[in-house]
Amino acid sequence: MSSGDAIKKKLVESAKLVDSFIDEILTPRRPEVLYDASRHLVLAGGKRLRPFLTLKACEAVGGNPEDAIPFAAALEILHNFTLVHDDVMDNDPVRRGAPTVHTKWGVPIAICAGDLLFAKVFEAMTAYAPKGVSAKRVNTCIEKATKAAIEICEGQVLDVSFPNTSDVSEEDYIAMVGGKTSALFRACAEVGGIVGGGKTRQVNALGKFAWDAGIAFQLMDDYLGATGDEKTLGKPVGSDIREGKKTLIIIHALRKAKPKQRERLLAVLGNHSATRQEIDEIHGLLRDIGSIDYALAKANRYIATSKRRFDALPDSEAKKDLFDLIDYFTNRKY
Amino acid sequence: MSSGDAIKKKLVESAKLVDSFIDEILTPRRPEVLYDASRHLVLAGGKRLRPFLTLKACEAVGGNPEDAIPFAAALEILHNFTLVHDDVMDNDPVRRGAPTVHTKWGVPIAICAGDLLFAKVFEAMTAYAPKGVSAKRVNTCIEKATKAAIEICEGQVLDVSFPNTSDVSEEDYIAMVGGKTSALFRACAEVGGIVGGGKTRQVNALGKFAWDAGIAFQLMDDYLGATGDEKTLGKPVGSDIREGKKTLIIIHALRKAKPKQRERLLAVLGNHSATRQEIDEIHGLLRDIGSIDYALAKANRYIATSKRRFDALPDSEAKKDLFDLIDYFTNRKY
Repeated sequence: MSSGDAIKKKLVESAKLVDSFIDEILTPRRPEVLYDASRHLVLAGGKRLRPFLTLKACEAVGGNPEDAIPFAAALEILHNFTLVHDDVMDNDPVRRGAPTVHTKWGVPIAICAGDLLFAKVFEAMTAYAPKGVSAKRVNTCIEKATKAAIEICEGQVLDVSFPNTSDVSEEDYIAMVGGKTSALFRACAEVGGIVGGGKTRQVNALGKFAWDAGIAFQLMDDYLGATGDEKTLGKPVGSDIREGKKTLIIIHALRKAKPKQRERLLAVLGNHSATRQEIDEIHGLLRDIGSIDYALAKANRYIATSKRRFDALPDSEAKKDLFDLIDYFTNRKY
Repeated sequence: MSSGDAIKKKLVESAKLVDSFIDEILTPRRPEVLYDASRHLVLAGGKRLRPFLTLKACEAVGGNPEDAIPFAAALEILHNFTLVHDDVMDNDPVRRGAPTVHTKWGVPIAICAGDLLFAKVFEAMTAYAPKGVSAKRVNTCIEKATKAAIEICEGQVLDVSFPNTSDVSEEDYIAMVGGKTSALFRACAEVGGIVGGGKTRQVNALGKFAWDAGIAFQLMDDYLGATGDEKTLGKPVGSDIREGKKTLIIIHALRKAKPKQRERLLAVLGNHSATRQEIDEIHGLLRDIGSIDYALAKANRYIATSKRRFDALPDSEAKKDLFDLIDYFTNRKY
């Protein structure tokens, strides 16, 4: 079995533990429609990458991963709360192959469903905390989760308020990705470390590893979006271009392009009916400008930094799993 | 000075303490627009009734109300988070005499602003908890606040999904008011009692007092809506009728009305251009059916039950303040 297959299997195993907890904490009450709407996305699947981080981080500092299940589930619920609200804000009709919550139940119910999920994060962490996890540790976990939630809001507002791609700096972009992806990754790893009784130095190292991994994942996503085929991407080639998505590649290209290249880029970016030929032309341009290589090099730097953080942790199977996770997600063909 | 004036003065004093904490915890960061939007409603005023409950409950069990300030502020922030999202759901343009958050900044920013406020509730309770308040107590406070947040979501969904007034039972109505008003009142009083080191019996009594007071306040609101003048109401006479608002009075009337009365009621209810003459006619009808007296009697029963809960608490100035608060808000002329 390749290390990729092994990681996939472990993700599925940990997802089962977490999913049954999520199912329990979202046990329907009145009004049913609220619970139907709240359960819809979070129980529709997902890779459960974030709870995996929490469980493995707990194990990596010598803790019992079972203690971390309510916390891992809480952080997955937090992630799903942000997705439900993001879909309302972006008016996205589909997520994970199913209609989004607001598409199915309308905006008011979707807002309430997100709010309920957010509340459940804290119910999971307090009312379900195992006896062995001290109140002080629980509080620190809540602080970490809250900090992430705040940064997610900040990242989302940066994202919706970037007026147009040509005004976004690389620094803004990294800040946005930090908020939208890395802040929660960091919280997941830190919370696992805290529940597991890790030393402050270890908890910090776990948080930093996950932060950098989050940026690397996003940059690899951008890279794949400009180089992958439809099967790898799970969406048509050129979707990022047609949607005018702000990626590091585009930001770099707009900064470095010659006037004629820039003009061509701006003509196709965000054009929903761009042809496949135009997409290929733009991908060629991005390669010529060096933007694709630039993003890949940057992603690789984040991967390397991320891995170096592990020096603070003793060798263990969990540490190896976290290592493999980075490789799996940054070399992914799924 | 009347007890009403004394309470007003005390509300203003406690509001100052709480407001300066709210101002601090919402210190602007990037992106500025998110913080502007988050600060807009909560710092625009309000009676600060909920934090008052928390501070006084803390004092009533012998605690130091200063310890309760971050918790009182957190619960006021929780209240404001729900208002920001409710205004989006109900598409209300004005609140506290100012444009609502989504009117000023758009729906996406308003959703994020509400989410940020919700996150700040937990930041206030963990990162700002005074040293003297144990981690265990902090946890219990978070549990209480979370329970309230869940019930608020449930109440709000009941409210937005009641198809039309004629289908709403009195039981549904009380469940909805319980969620939308009493759940947070209860949490405010319980959290104050917990921070102050109250015995479980006292904390429970405080919670029950506040729950019943919340229902009484809402019923008195309904009563005033059908009997008050424009100055008392702060809005035109008959607003509840024109908006087709689900009040206990209307629910009772639709159940007890004779066919002709019912027909007349349904013709005017929810008619935004109903004349003052029609409103007077409906108010006359509601009186004839006995619905106005019914709501008043019910409110008085809740007030009496609410006050009886205080038997569990020793006499004190804070206990008297809570007593006066009920009288002030249920006999209010403001």
